[in-house]
Amino acid sequence: MTMAWLQRQIELAPRRRGFHLVTDEIARAVPEMARVRVGVAHLFIQHTSASLCVNENADPDVRGDLERHFNVIAPENQPHYQHTVEGPDDMPAHIKAALIGTSLTLPITDGRFNLGTWQGVYLCEHRNRAGARRVIVTIQGDSNDG
Amino acid sequence: MTMAWLQRQIELAPRRRGFHLVTDEIARAVPEMARVRVGVAHLFIQHTSASLCVNENADPDVRGDLERHFNVIAPENQPHYQHTVEGPDDMPAHIKAALIGTSLTLPITDGRFNLGTWQGVYLCEHRNRAGARRVIVTIQGDSNDG
Amino acid sequence: MTMAWLQRQIELAPRRRGFHLVTDEIARAVPEMARVRVGVAHLFIQHTSASLCVNENADPDVRGDLERHFNVIAPENQPHYQHTVEGPDDMPAHIKAALIGTSLTLPITDGRFNLGTWQGVYLCEHRNRAGARRVIVTIQGDSNDG
Repeated sequence: MTMAWLQRQIELAPRRRGFHLVTDEIARAVPEMARVRVGVAHLFIQHTSASLCVNENADPDVRGDLERHFNVIAPENQPHYQHTVEGPDDMPAHIKAALIGTSLTLPITDGRFNLGTWQGVYLCEHRNRAGARRVIVTIQGDSNDG
Repeated sequence: MTMAWLQRQIELAPRRRGFHLVTDEIARAVPEMARVRVGVAHLFIQHTSASLCVNENADPDVRGDLERHFNVIAPENQPHYQHTVEGPDDMPAHIKAALIGTSLTLPITDGRFNLGTWQGVYLCEHRNRAGARRVIVTIQGDSNDG
Repeated sequence: MTMAWLQRQIELAPRRRGFHLVTDEIARAVPEMARVRVGVAHLFIQHTSASLCVNENADPDVRGDLERHFNVIAPENQPHYQHTVEGPDDMPAHIKAALIGTSLTLPITDGRFNLGTWQGVYLCEHRNRAGARRVIVTIQGDSNDG
């Protein structure tokens, strides 16, 4: 057994406001994961107006409904918002990030994220116009070398 | 010091819709945890309509109130839902899973989950009728052998 | 490479109900983190009426708006609450803890939490009157000694 650590800063391509599947984009950025027999991958998005979660990878309507319903839970232009200088989509973005979370830990088994059949990793983009999003990926595991 | 990794797929018995204490059921499935002096346990549910969290282990009314209030936060039959083919409880289940989360990391100390006095691990079952739920448990730690 | 584990129970000073930046208070409690080249820190709050998240470290209005908006999402005195014996702020506190989460994993790089420029760690205090809050910090990493 060899104990392996890998940490890498990656950039997820810019996306429009909404919920987006990024499982493959993340996996491609850490090809060394293929050597990890058993381990965990920690994903941490270095922003406060976007978030990461795991949800359904099949019907795109789920992603649309999530965007629509999170806009009900955290609507724009509420009278109790005092942080308004960065635009009407900014404070709701902070609330959504607090609700959904900025990091994710996934199990790794035999070189791959060990997700359920219907699961995928989502980048949840809460701003109307955002650039690439930085994610710190930290992988640790037991790699059977040789 | 010996660095230990343990990863196991377990199944939580089917439960009715609601919030359920499963701390002991999970601990019993990984008896090897008893040998871990310091470490962490990662629990990952391989589904998108159930979730995991830590909350109160005492008054069952807390679990009832959580079920009732999450039904207010993510109600059924909203006009903006387009993902309706799997029944009225399905899209709310995806929203609740995004809000609560599909994974949990717990500290391990002296062979046990190091929870607060009033804390327990919840399986949050968001579907009306669900089967057993698969959870990947990954334990890593420093085990003082010999 | 040396594999290091550090686990410590720390106490966060009592704070009034609301969202509070505690990044420095936590980092000061684990000065050994300075020796970790690559790793992760796991923070686990041993309570069910307070929570931990990462959000904006700059404008304090963001923290005020989060407090105000979470009071909209999980209001006091709802007719469907049956857990009322511990006061009107208690059941909303449990709901907020389920929404925000009781644990947090942060990447460590070159001896520090590797947060984005605008990110900080929040203690989210959901009770009107609370004492110090216990947090179990577990750090693991690759420390380049000598």
